[in-house]
Amino acid sequence: DRPLTIIAGPCQLESADHAQMIAGTLKEACDAAGAQFVFKGSFDKANRTSVNAAPALGLEKGLAVLQSVKDTIGVPVITDVHEKEQCAPVAQVCDILQIPAFLCRQTALLRAAGETGIAVNVKKGQFLAPWDMANVAAKIESTGNGNVMLTERGVSFGYNRLVVDMQSLPEMARAGHPVIMDATHAVAQPGGLGGSSGGQREFAPVMARAAVSVGVAGVFMETHQDPDNAPCDGPNMIYLDQMPKLIDTLMAFDRLAKANPVQI
Amino acid sequence: DRPLTIIAGPCQLESADHAQMIAGTLKEACDAAGAQFVFKGSFDKANRTSVNAAPALGLEKGLAVLQSVKDTIGVPVITDVHEKEQCAPVAQVCDILQIPAFLCRQTALLRAAGETGIAVNVKKGQFLAPWDMANVAAKIESTGNGNVMLTERGVSFGYNRLVVDMQSLPEMARAGHPVIMDATHAVAQPGGLGGSSGGQREFAPVMARAAVSVGVAGVFMETHQDPDNAPCDGPNMIYLDQMPKLIDTLMAFDRLAKANPVQI
Amino acid sequence: DRPLTIIAGPCQLESADHAQMIAGTLKEACDAAGAQFVFKGSFDKANRTSVNAAPALGLEKGLAVLQSVKDTIGVPVITDVHEKEQCAPVAQVCDILQIPAFLCRQTALLRAAGETGIAVNVKKGQFLAPWDMANVAAKIESTGNGNVMLTERGVSFGYNRLVVDMQSLPEMARAGHPVIMDATHAVAQPGGLGGSSGGQREFAPVMARAAVSVGVAGVFMETHQDPDNAPCDGPNMIYLDQMPKLIDTLMAFDRLAKANPVQI
Amino acid sequence: DRPLTIIAGPCQLESADHAQMIAGTLKEACDAAGAQFVFKGSFDKANRTSVNAAPALGLEKGLAVLQSVKDTIGVPVITDVHEKEQCAPVAQVCDILQIPAFLCRQTALLRAAGETGIAVNVKKGQFLAPWDMANVAAKIESTGNGNVMLTERGVSFGYNRLVVDMQSLPEMARAGHPVIMDATHAVAQPGGLGGSSGGQREFAPVMARAAVSVGVAGVFMETHQDPDNAPCDGPNMIYLDQMPKLIDTLMAFDRLAKANPVQI
Repeated sequence: DRPLTIIAGPCQLESADHAQMIAGTLKEACDAAGAQFVFKGSFDKANRTSVNAAPALGLEKGLAVLQSVKDTIGVPVITDVHEKEQCAPVAQVCDILQIPAFLCRQTALLRAAGETGIAVNVKKGQFLAPWDMANVAAKIESTGNGNVMLTERGVSFGYNRLVVDMQSLPEMARAGHPVIMDATHAVAQPGGLGGSSGGQREFAPVMARAAVSVGVAGVFMETHQDPDNAPCDGPNMIYLDQMPKLIDTLMAFDRLAKANPVQI
Repeated sequence: DRPLTIIAGPCQLESADHAQMIAGTLKEACDAAGAQFVFKGSFDKANRTSVNAAPALGLEKGLAVLQSVKDTIGVPVITDVHEKEQCAPVAQVCDILQIPAFLCRQTALLRAAGETGIAVNVKKGQFLAPWDMANVAAKIESTGNGNVMLTERGVSFGYNRLVVDMQSLPEMARAGHPVIMDATHAVAQPGGLGGSSGGQREFAPVMARAAVSVGVAGVFMETHQDPDNAPCDGPNMIYLDQMPKLIDTLMAFDRLAKANPVQI
Repeated sequence: DRPLTIIAGPCQLESADHAQMIAGTLKEACDAAGAQFVFKGSFDKANRTSVNAAPALGLEKGLAVLQSVKDTIGVPVITDVHEKEQCAPVAQVCDILQIPAFLCRQTALLRAAGETGIAVNVKKGQFLAPWDMANVAAKIESTGNGNVMLTERGVSFGYNRLVVDMQSLPEMARAGHPVIMDATHAVAQPGGLGGSSGGQREFAPVMARAAVSVGVAGVFMETHQDPDNAPCDGPNMIYLDQMPKLIDTLMAFDRLAKANPVQI
Repeated sequence: DRPLTIIAGPCQLESADHAQMIAGTLKEACDAAGAQFVFKGSFDKANRTSVNAAPALGLEKGLAVLQSVKDTIGVPVITDVHEKEQCAPVAQVCDILQIPAFLCRQTALLRAAGETGIAVNVKKGQFLAPWDMANVAAKIESTGNGNVMLTERGVSFGYNRLVVDMQSLPEMARAGHPVIMDATHAVAQPGGLGGSSGGQREFAPVMARAAVSVGVAGVFMETHQDPDNAPCDGPNMIYLDQMPKLIDTLMAFDRLAKANPVQI
């Protein structure tokens, strides 16, 4: 098995300079630790809790920022799409398309993503069982594109709380696609602050480590140099200056896990 | 309080004849029982479990069927929209737009629906708490359209099962909008049959009755003359020939409930 | 079907005078409304959240209070048992033994309760499915005592919250025993106040009404003249002076429900 | 931090010979891997799903078997108590008393266990949040006995299924007591086979590994040379001949985790 891939970046793209700063820091940390790295940033936050949330860059400016990260830092990039019309233009810049969890059953969007021919990472809906994701993957595969990744990000557990079922990681792997752990959204508390989501960032490394020990292809984490002043997802983002040590630790667990794979 | 509104129809529109047959039967039953009636049918099923599900009529043919129901039966009609571009054309035919549960946080879709100026019925996501719906309604209200309805259709309860929390009905009513109980989707078992959703139609009248007794503005129910051969949602649809008796019973509970309103 | 039975009383027995006052008020209200009445009070609270909770009367004094209620008010009484040795002495005074939810799988306790020969009301554990209760009832039936009642009091729904699944009422009825709705514990928030349970008493009538409309043999409710100063369960108990009106309303729903029984 | 403790044994004690065979095999494996070992076996299964379950040895014979394990294998032993009268005699043989999950709020039982003065391991109820366990520990501590261990064994997640929240491990640790992961009960499916519990033993090593990586004082696992013919818990017990390799792997993760402790 290949070493762990770290998919990371700020929740929302802010500017080219900001994205490059984050990507550069993460690239260096991943290189030092022997991890693969993919930069993630969103050009739109289509399902924020409140209509009053901070506005995002939009498609055109967002893609320009992502292109600048590719050009200057030399890393692959991923972003999320919300409408089927966004898939083709995004695929011209990005290496991987991401389908948000709420939209993971929207057939037209999944098919449009598949038809781009590039890799598609689908986040498992908070309302789905891990074995339901085989049907989701099949919608993409029906376009002839078998390059699918499946991401765990927690499942609804009562009101305003998620739980991560570590059994879901090997369960999803049965569908034959790489499995990613989204460690920071998994510790979000949806709607937990009334007009926005809460979160417990201190638990994100816990979730990341447990998942890596079970065995995953990658870990997704949102990070920011100043989470409390970030435009979104502040309560669950990891401080950027803590990422190098965390990545290093995760790689140690990854090596141990891949030398001793779980068998189910 | 006004008498109960029954929102009902087949899951998926099949043909003008079929829609008129269903609508006519239901109109007659509602008239006899003193209920208001709104016909519901879908032109697209955008988030079916499997990519191999039976195809739907599509927007143009679907709207023509809905128009024919209005013309021949003389009842208001409602259908669900999945992409923001669908809102304007649908609003030219329909009296109410419906936002599916998975899409209840998509800001652009909610705003496009609000901007049509007609009533918008939002189904509460299986991943949301009832108090989260005030933020959802605010996205529509931000367009100047305060004509919002909120629908309960169950909340995730472990894997492949929903539970209806009757407390959610008065909780959602606090947002100041009419509350609807979706009694048939609430007894669906998402993904419960592997490649499609299961369901327990025998419990739909139980959910409908309990909700009406607590006090709601309307009840939504899918119905079909032959559910086991319907193109979708068969396991949880109610037999059409059982609807008149059910509507009659629900109206009796509605009269009693509205004479003795719950106070929280 | 027989009219609804109201099982009610304070959470914890305080004194003979207090118990008789509560029982007398409730007996009068039930007589006026045509309901059957059973008085409930606990001589011990064996599983309080905190070790610092207010002490209870204990077995001997508690049974004396219950006997005084029988003698002066002339109503049947029920109390909960926590250890198998308590069953025989309690059965000499009480008409019904109650098994607490946490203890509903303890074989020795269930068998000791069954062996008294009097009716046994088992509360469904917060960790059980409704269909699991047939195995619970069978433990009592194995003693030759088929006089069993099954009580719904909510099921775990994430942390520190319960949800009532109205489907569980007809599901449990399939076991062939009368089903009771515990409307006040169902709205408790276990551990919700840190050192004690929280609750939302305003929703107890909602749960009671919904359950009665679905169809139950009885409703259990805790009540107190001054819940905020009661020794336990204050946040979810109903004010005593609101009980007569509530019982009256529940009887109206009960008559309508029993004239139109749910069929599953 | 001290190396991981393995608490293991068959679900139900069968005979002295059988217990010694299991304990000897596990002692050897733990010695080889550098793990501490405690033998666990039950003299009674007080809350089996069905009244028809295989009978257990009972208190007297069970304690004799546990004493024989101590005498011949030289390891500490633990067993579970269900009634307060059992605590004193069990404490004369065992090194640790265990409180079953369903009984974790029974004040009298917790106090009786605490009063023995030996260590008390309390399993977190399937209906409790991790932060609720501080109140549970306080009931034992109120006897002057601070030697408490807290065990995670999954939390109710819908019907007939548990989920393990890895966040609960550091959350419980905040109460200041060693935290144990019960890896085999966590993958049980309570009531999942109708008259008995189901389970997915293939996931027990997954849960064990994830918990060890997060950081725990010990792991509890039930094991049997022939689980499918064991008197209880067969579906989730681990094959005895797979235990040495599993313990060895867990120790590698334990060393890595304790060199890189999680900080919350």
